[in-house]
Amino acid sequence: MASLLRKVELFYDVLSPYSWLCFEVLCRYQKIWKINLHLRPTYIAGIMKSSGNKPPALLPLKGKYMLMDLEYLREFYQVPIQVPKDFFSVILEKGSITAMRFLTAINMENPEMLEKASRELWMRVWSRAAKKAGLSEEQAKGLLEKCSTDKVKNSLKETTDVAFNYGAFGLPTVVVHVDNKSHMLFGSDRMELLAHLLESWKSSGKTKSKVTDNGPGCSG
Amino acid sequence: MASLLRKVELFYDVLSPYSWLCFEVLCRYQKIWKINLHLRPTYIAGIMKSSGNKPPALLPLKGKYMLMDLEYLREFYQVPIQVPKDFFSVILEKGSITAMRFLTAINMENPEMLEKASRELWMRVWSRAAKKAGLSEEQAKGLLEKCSTDKVKNSLKETTDVAFNYGAFGLPTVVVHVDNKSHMLFGSDRMELLAHLLESWKSSGKTKSKVTDNGPGCSG
Repeated sequence: MASLLRKVELFYDVLSPYSWLCFEVLCRYQKIWKINLHLRPTYIAGIMKSSGNKPPALLPLKGKYMLMDLEYLREFYQVPIQVPKDFFSVILEKGSITAMRFLTAINMENPEMLEKASRELWMRVWSRAAKKAGLSEEQAKGLLEKCSTDKVKNSLKETTDVAFNYGAFGLPTVVVHVDNKSHMLFGSDRMELLAHLLESWKSSGKTKSKVTDNGPGCSG
Repeated sequence: MASLLRKVELFYDVLSPYSWLCFEVLCRYQKIWKINLHLRPTYIAGIMKSSGNKPPALLPLKGKYMLMDLEYLREFYQVPIQVPKDFFSVILEKGSITAMRFLTAINMENPEMLEKASRELWMRVWSRAAKKAGLSEEQAKGLLEKCSTDKVKNSLKETTDVAFNYGAFGLPTVVVHVDNKSHMLFGSDRMELLAHLLESWKSSGKTKSKVTDNGPGCSG
């Protein structure tokens, strides 16, 4: 049965609130959509650097819009995002290398805790409602020590390179594996499309366009 | 009855394929969502200049991704977008000032033809299946002459300024008017959110967040 599940990789960084939305939608729907979800902690600054992209909030009007957009999406997706008061310093200055190395270490040592720990980190950055992921003090200490090892550092770097090689220019990036092909989707706003593609790939093996060239036929 | 309809403005440019998707979705759902749709031809290069934004396709990886994204969305939305072979020259070099002045002139002289004429222009740029909007040769000639008048030029400039003053940094930009307040949404990927917001604004007069701070409660 497991072999019938399509593998879907989510490349994410806890600095990205849109990654959080994507993460929660995929966690909620993984059974309904019959996907084998692989959580891939990634370093967003690495993706930005490799691709030459810039964080959207650097453009003042986009930054301003994001505040309202996240407020609406918080309610739409029922994910308790609360934009911190020092929004710009969080996104643009603090960086996420330690957090993402920590999640990489968890993925290597205690992969079963990765989902909860990722959610806890988002809650800490993006919500006032942080909860404990259930790590013991000893476990947390051990993982923090591992963060500075080359093994963990290289693993995060490798994952970031993998995402870039799929064509990523930002996060969240979702890669769907079907029939030995990979399909990349960018952003939390392609989830309805993902559900649709999973369905059409299931029935036909590939997406076939049903659109004819006889016009849209969609006058209002 | 008409006064109960919420006014929704769509600021668009036919150079933007995502504006086309947004346009078709709004045309299809305007009766179901009980909105009073106002089509506002806008000049995208003016918005980019005022806001300091740049067309996404300028970043090579985004440009590459857009090709695939539009292919998927064509099928998802059943809008016959076909990316022209000279994609980059269409988006980045040709410009849309004449097309958008033409639509502005139509909006001033024959507003009842604006929807069809806009669709025809998108079809010409973004599809191989252009149809006639039903303008007579005489009408078309008259409108083309009007394009170079100050009245038409200023009208397009004014609309572009209005969009910028709402906070637009790109197109499509949708502005919803509820209870003497304006709410701006950016992009063709906020249509599900728009439907949700229209519903919640109807019932409560404003959006109330139902999200508590007790955690997302959405473990997969």
